[in-house]
Amino acid sequence: MQKAEKSQETNNTKKSLILVSNDDGITAKGIRELVEMMTLLGEVIVVAPDSPQSGMGHAITIHMPLKVRKSDVFKDLGVEAYECSGTPADCVKLAKFHIFKNRTPDLVVSGVNHGSNTSISVLYSGTMSAAIEGAIEGLPSIGFSLCDYGENADFSHVRPHILKIAEQTLKKGLPKNVALNVNFPARFDKETKEEQEIKGTKICRQAHARWQEKFDLRTDPYGREYLWLAGDFVNPDKGEDTDEWAVNNGYISIVPCQFDMTAHHGITYINNEWDI
Amino acid sequence: MQKAEKSQETNNTKKSLILVSNDDGITAKGIRELVEMMTLLGEVIVVAPDSPQSGMGHAITIHMPLKVRKSDVFKDLGVEAYECSGTPADCVKLAKFHIFKNRTPDLVVSGVNHGSNTSISVLYSGTMSAAIEGAIEGLPSIGFSLCDYGENADFSHVRPHILKIAEQTLKKGLPKNVALNVNFPARFDKETKEEQEIKGTKICRQAHARWQEKFDLRTDPYGREYLWLAGDFVNPDKGEDTDEWAVNNGYISIVPCQFDMTAHHGITYINNEWDI
Repeated sequence: MQKAEKSQETNNTKKSLILVSNDDGITAKGIRELVEMMTLLGEVIVVAPDSPQSGMGHAITIHMPLKVRKSDVFKDLGVEAYECSGTPADCVKLAKFHIFKNRTPDLVVSGVNHGSNTSISVLYSGTMSAAIEGAIEGLPSIGFSLCDYGENADFSHVRPHILKIAEQTLKKGLPKNVALNVNFPARFDKETKEEQEIKGTKICRQAHARWQEKFDLRTDPYGREYLWLAGDFVNPDKGEDTDEWAVNNGYISIVPCQFDMTAHHGITYINNEWDI
Repeated sequence: MQKAEKSQETNNTKKSLILVSNDDGITAKGIRELVEMMTLLGEVIVVAPDSPQSGMGHAITIHMPLKVRKSDVFKDLGVEAYECSGTPADCVKLAKFHIFKNRTPDLVVSGVNHGSNTSISVLYSGTMSAAIEGAIEGLPSIGFSLCDYGENADFSHVRPHILKIAEQTLKKGLPKNVALNVNFPARFDKETKEEQEIKGTKICRQAHARWQEKFDLRTDPYGREYLWLAGDFVNPDKGEDTDEWAVNNGYISIVPCQFDMTAHHGITYINNEWDI
């Protein structure tokens, strides 16, 4: 019902132009889900990495040239698509300044990521770097992530929610230079394997948690050592207003994000305490 | 005078343990300057990328293993050093959880970067990602950058300032989870080539500026197109309390940075305006 309503509304007004990107690469299942949902809201153009870019944070490519090719991946959906050798942030820059030329997207969406991007992961997340790059450009932007790392993760339960959040963003807008970090609980509980009901949506702050790394030391067939970065997520933040609390309690978390890193309390501290 | 004073002070107390990293790679001129200064304040261990990592933002390496090797680069200074195949954020994680083992650094410093990291560049900066990674680990951390991209940039004018800022951080500390983004004006004016006097230090906020990208489209010898990311820095922010204002007016800028990206005004906006 929601889909029908929305596509009708869209037909009555100027068609929205929507840029879709991600960090798992253009062939991931999650981006196809997102593209399918976005075609219900407007004209979609995809500019996404040609290979997985997880953990790329806000990296951009300045020491190497970029390659961009038209892609047939979304031909069945009638969607124009480009694959790019760069990072998610590169893709948004390329879309804005090279591919879209004089057109400006009404919405930038990134994902759906295969895996959580709550809390501190927003800094390491390629998915969110595409959304934040959109926000830097002054465009309403959203990064969507599902708390399920599986390549074949089930996204069906989040489809109506993706549509609703994107549609509200198009209709009601966002404060300038704000991007949304949206995380969905997985469809099935990791331990019990039982289906989890989504209880609702919480507008949250970023949980103050971090990764406690463990490096897995191995030896290659030539006797040389190498390490795999691994780690446990440690969350001492007991706040029930956090994204971590929300997704762990069956809610969708939406954290509005901005890119001014200034610690204003730090300015006061240094001005008062330091001799400089 | 300052150096003598400081090394004396250091001898009177527990020797500080200082981790040095960067994003221009372990052989860059800037990191050598920083290592030399830090040896005046304590025991230094270097963990830095084995190749340039500019623009890497807060990237971490999760799809590939990491290689770490002991390096002789700072043998002449009696400094233990490791070069790593990963990003600056990887280097700090490796140092903390693999190399330092049960020791905890008193200070994490990154740089000195060959080039400015003011304003929005903090997001794209590998130099700052090392410092912010330190702050995530709860360690006093500083990223130093010189507004001069030259490989042989002149760092001599900033040496006493690096020492003073590092020393104040060790003595007076920083609020928890805050990293400093320090930018120094270049020694010589880019246009007039005249030597510029450093007028002082300003504790600043991040300027609200951005890059207006231009992609330089070229064709390779095989007829395939590729693009170079380039751009102009656009700063509409007229505030005289910003890092951009400071470095452009002969001052050192210090921006205390934090890693909570939550846009709290966005929470209010969505709760009030959206139907969700």
